[in-house]
Amino acid sequence: MRARRKTGPTAGATLVEIPVPRPGPGEVLIEVAAASICGTDLHIYRWDRWAAGRIQTLPMTFGHEVAGTVVATGPEVHHIERGAFVSAEGHLFCGFCRLCRSGRMHICENLRILGVDLDGGFADYVILPERNTWEVDPRIPPDVASIHDPFGNAVHTIFNGGDTSDVATSAVVVLGCGPIGLFAVGVARAVGARQVVAVEPNEYRQDLAKRMGADLVVDPSKEDPVAAVLEATGGHGAEVVLEMSGVGEVIAQGTRMLARGGRMSLLGLPSDPVTLDLTDQVIFKEARILGVTGREIFRTWQQMTTLLATGMVDVTPVITHRFPLERFEEAFDVMASGRSGKVILLPHT
Amino acid sequence: MRARRKTGPTAGATLVEIPVPRPGPGEVLIEVAAASICGTDLHIYRWDRWAAGRIQTLPMTFGHEVAGTVVATGPEVHHIERGAFVSAEGHLFCGFCRLCRSGRMHICENLRILGVDLDGGFADYVILPERNTWEVDPRIPPDVASIHDPFGNAVHTIFNGGDTSDVATSAVVVLGCGPIGLFAVGVARAVGARQVVAVEPNEYRQDLAKRMGADLVVDPSKEDPVAAVLEATGGHGAEVVLEMSGVGEVIAQGTRMLARGGRMSLLGLPSDPVTLDLTDQVIFKEARILGVTGREIFRTWQQMTTLLATGMVDVTPVITHRFPLERFEEAFDVMASGRSGKVILLPHT
Amino acid sequence: MRARRKTGPTAGATLVEIPVPRPGPGEVLIEVAAASICGTDLHIYRWDRWAAGRIQTLPMTFGHEVAGTVVATGPEVHHIERGAFVSAEGHLFCGFCRLCRSGRMHICENLRILGVDLDGGFADYVILPERNTWEVDPRIPPDVASIHDPFGNAVHTIFNGGDTSDVATSAVVVLGCGPIGLFAVGVARAVGARQVVAVEPNEYRQDLAKRMGADLVVDPSKEDPVAAVLEATGGHGAEVVLEMSGVGEVIAQGTRMLARGGRMSLLGLPSDPVTLDLTDQVIFKEARILGVTGREIFRTWQQMTTLLATGMVDVTPVITHRFPLERFEEAFDVMASGRSGKVILLPHT
Amino acid sequence: MRARRKTGPTAGATLVEIPVPRPGPGEVLIEVAAASICGTDLHIYRWDRWAAGRIQTLPMTFGHEVAGTVVATGPEVHHIERGAFVSAEGHLFCGFCRLCRSGRMHICENLRILGVDLDGGFADYVILPERNTWEVDPRIPPDVASIHDPFGNAVHTIFNGGDTSDVATSAVVVLGCGPIGLFAVGVARAVGARQVVAVEPNEYRQDLAKRMGADLVVDPSKEDPVAAVLEATGGHGAEVVLEMSGVGEVIAQGTRMLARGGRMSLLGLPSDPVTLDLTDQVIFKEARILGVTGREIFRTWQQMTTLLATGMVDVTPVITHRFPLERFEEAFDVMASGRSGKVILLPHT
Repeated sequence: MRARRKTGPTAGATLVEIPVPRPGPGEVLIEVAAASICGTDLHIYRWDRWAAGRIQTLPMTFGHEVAGTVVATGPEVHHIERGAFVSAEGHLFCGFCRLCRSGRMHICENLRILGVDLDGGFADYVILPERNTWEVDPRIPPDVASIHDPFGNAVHTIFNGGDTSDVATSAVVVLGCGPIGLFAVGVARAVGARQVVAVEPNEYRQDLAKRMGADLVVDPSKEDPVAAVLEATGGHGAEVVLEMSGVGEVIAQGTRMLARGGRMSLLGLPSDPVTLDLTDQVIFKEARILGVTGREIFRTWQQMTTLLATGMVDVTPVITHRFPLERFEEAFDVMASGRSGKVILLPHT
Repeated sequence: MRARRKTGPTAGATLVEIPVPRPGPGEVLIEVAAASICGTDLHIYRWDRWAAGRIQTLPMTFGHEVAGTVVATGPEVHHIERGAFVSAEGHLFCGFCRLCRSGRMHICENLRILGVDLDGGFADYVILPERNTWEVDPRIPPDVASIHDPFGNAVHTIFNGGDTSDVATSAVVVLGCGPIGLFAVGVARAVGARQVVAVEPNEYRQDLAKRMGADLVVDPSKEDPVAAVLEATGGHGAEVVLEMSGVGEVIAQGTRMLARGGRMSLLGLPSDPVTLDLTDQVIFKEARILGVTGREIFRTWQQMTTLLATGMVDVTPVITHRFPLERFEEAFDVMASGRSGKVILLPHT
Repeated sequence: MRARRKTGPTAGATLVEIPVPRPGPGEVLIEVAAASICGTDLHIYRWDRWAAGRIQTLPMTFGHEVAGTVVATGPEVHHIERGAFVSAEGHLFCGFCRLCRSGRMHICENLRILGVDLDGGFADYVILPERNTWEVDPRIPPDVASIHDPFGNAVHTIFNGGDTSDVATSAVVVLGCGPIGLFAVGVARAVGARQVVAVEPNEYRQDLAKRMGADLVVDPSKEDPVAAVLEATGGHGAEVVLEMSGVGEVIAQGTRMLARGGRMSLLGLPSDPVTLDLTDQVIFKEARILGVTGREIFRTWQQMTTLLATGMVDVTPVITHRFPLERFEEAFDVMASGRSGKVILLPHT
Repeated sequence: MRARRKTGPTAGATLVEIPVPRPGPGEVLIEVAAASICGTDLHIYRWDRWAAGRIQTLPMTFGHEVAGTVVATGPEVHHIERGAFVSAEGHLFCGFCRLCRSGRMHICENLRILGVDLDGGFADYVILPERNTWEVDPRIPPDVASIHDPFGNAVHTIFNGGDTSDVATSAVVVLGCGPIGLFAVGVARAVGARQVVAVEPNEYRQDLAKRMGADLVVDPSKEDPVAAVLEATGGHGAEVVLEMSGVGEVIAQGTRMLARGGRMSLLGLPSDPVTLDLTDQVIFKEARILGVTGREIFRTWQQMTTLLATGMVDVTPVITHRFPLERFEEAFDVMASGRSGKVILLPHT
């Protein structure tokens, strides 16, 4: 089979022919219908400092946002059958640590990530533990099925451990409109935000934010986003700020546009420590700063199924590009250009 | 001034001329622009068993769903000024009991109700404590302003003590589509219910439920509502059931259509004790049965302002009739007929 | 091996010799060190109406509160090893229904119960799925290890889906002081209840309630428990009522002793429908009535380990009797007498 | 009357004779029985950068932790009567902003602080709005009554917006054992923490932490507190970290000793921005960082009354010094020395 692999510790990725792997105990083999590209994949592709420090073994096939058809099952597989069309939960959890055993598998103490710690989905086939598969609702088309992972990040960020009480009727700011931020705009809209403000410097993505339902799009290269949010909220600030940029300065701005008693969720990953005015912007405001990672296994998937299958959120504007596996470099170039939403690889078309 | 008063312990109400009352310490005088009729008012009008046992002093002007203009203020009034257009929170709370002091004024231990325990709003003017007034957003028209009270019941029922997490992406059933049930359909829709099922035997109200956004309207006189809800939810039951009928048998049905782990909120007031299968329908399901009364003071009002002023919920289909104060009997007849949504009295038009 | 089996649809249980079972895929074989007797077992022993309707296949070994040593493992067992000392989570869940997949395995849609739907632990050996085992903290002795199941009922009832906020500093009433009620007294004490009131007619158990830390024990055969709780709480009622009796009339009393805004958890299983005054005791009070069953898998077990292993709760007063497997009838007689707390069978001593 | 006033923008405070003030509308006059000294008072006394920037008008009597007897009431006072013994809620709220109207008066948008924005309690008498008084339970002695304010900070930090679920059965770290940290040790103990670890460099306060119930006291000048907490928690980290030091570096340490999924509450006020490793210590851990200020009005006071009046928390070890108003400088010296817990002024003894 073909696989896009990281063969050495340098930029780029090679299309190689390797044997189709065989599923072990509890595993299934998936024929990849669609694999979308994540920002993490761009780090690995470029082999930056983070990737060099994080990736343990080479060669490795990367890609973790995958959907496809189960074509073989290993021993000890009891529920999923051949022919099932599934999407991948890329967080492989141990199932026995104290976090797994209290229902928080997504922050398992022994977490391994598909396409980072083991071979992923930029290939014709991928192996996945049965318990990491989610059968896709038939109303959801294959390419959309591949974005469950990042869409789930957005849904989990909004739902905040099961609680959307602070989103419904609130002013919600989304900082950074990459695909996850764009999804978050749509989800906030769907669950009753009063007002959705998107902050994004890239014009292409500003346009997508509007199409996803943002009431106001602020260009931080042209105006002060803190002032813009305060003005849009009558001086009170936003009850909810969703941080998707991972930029330290933007995170600090987020705290300043937050209303008293507000909630700021951090999903974007800053590469350096971040300096915050805790006294005035967090403590006296009694603000809540919530780290968010992955998505709840599988509650978020149940919520996603509803949002995607019923049409409550239409993610199609965000999916801007589709490429065959051969045009991998082109796909990464488009993604790096910023003139794209979600870029999807379709190995078998 | 004119006032529709209960002058004796019999059915009906008399239009009398009485002096305009003077606001005492902390009170304001409101010129009534609109007063809508509640089911409670119908009980008082008919002077049924409940009314005879509940109303302590006669004569009394009834009506508690009121909006109008502040035309005079008493001593000790510090915030509201003449000319303000306000809606009435009809739950008069003591402010000093342990519930008031922990932010739950709506279940104050010393609660008094406007139009039940003291003179209400079916009149040209009404007296209200300043702290029971809510300045109406100018985007909300006067007749809509008068339905804050029942709309707030619906919003508070949905928001469930600040938590809509179980409504967003869930199947929600509304049992009984009087005005509060109809509002609940619209609010559930606005905050991201996956599916809204209305159960209502009255055809006129079935039609209103559809207009408020119900996906499915079940006529319990024609089909078994429990079977209908189970079928509509793939056999799982509804995650959220909102009980607005106050009928014992319907409440019992509600528990049977509830999903495992679901929530049923009770707002409708049964006149007799209710018999429930707690073991199978509540305990083994680990269901939550939540009593709901009034609305949070004033968090629910903030939420209502958003929902009404931004157009997230359009309540105008529910407001079906408007009458001058003189045509009071006609208004009550229309309301009793069941061929109505909300019926509003407009004293000064 | 020896097993106490229900061999036919009549009262009693027979001690028979049967082959030691072999663990299948994902299963382990446990040598039973201690098996405690639950009220459910008494129903099965007596073969009452409930048992006759519930038990599907005979013969069957009953008993589900079990602890012991893993002596063999089947295929597909990956974590637990021979020699581990484990306690049994008796709720066998499917792992793939929508409730299992959202972390609520204890209310799985396909739940099977150890000792009810399949052979249980009143025997020398018992088979259990690996994922239903919990390794017992070495600070907890074997007989105490066997009461994780009912102790977990108490802990789960108190923790109420992860929230003890209404127990700390509150007045807590425990209705019915069988073993679970007695455990609840101790747990309420340990997590900061202001006042723990136990309601129990049996003098032997009243004494145990005092030993577990009850501030006040009310004998409902001698005084009105509603009046007693109101008096003990300055007329306000208790913020938390934990119903462990399963008696309809007691449940109704529970609602009447509940404070405004209070919470009543129902764990006891009434055998008939229960009639409640919902209007005055639930709706106007804005009370929460919460069904409770089983225990969270495995969050409750983590909490239990802390409570038992650190000595925060001392359950030893509740364990009043220990018998070898031969003296089974005697054990059931003691249990039926009411002059007992928890009765434990020790097959291998 | 005598008052300790800040008469000019320099260090120190003058004991002056001024007329007894008269209570205005809604206000009461309190004869001060006890006034305890807060760290904030030390800032004002020393007239540091913060004080110089914060205090708007001089002269001003400072001190906000006050208890005493109501000796006169102004007009518009309806509940509190002469002779009542009250403690002061020092956060004067407007009652009409959106935060006040949703039950969060302690983060009112128009907050004024007793002894900072208006004359406080280091005097024979102090004026307070009636609605800022709390009648003290008679079981609580006068000097203890004066520490409701800082004790309430601790209680509010632990109760975390009404939720102690993460404290019960958890490992709790208290960073910084000034009086509030010491109180927090006692409260964590009372509501069921599994383990309470205090981190404090001052030996005098280490000893007080042990007396308040800390299981382990870590001296950060002698060992790495992060390593110590990880070791004490089997490498998992603490589920709850309560930050009372206000030192940036300590806050950063707090995030590193926090367990996955843990909660860190920030009450101490850092004077400069703080640099945090958000990616590894907050986001990947899915940690919650919660700002905390003041105390809930009056829910925290209800909780405090229970904790203090029933003896669930004994705060007397923390109250180490008592002085008459004349020995004010001595009191501040003791407090600045670090060899003290809470220092209380007793004007009328």
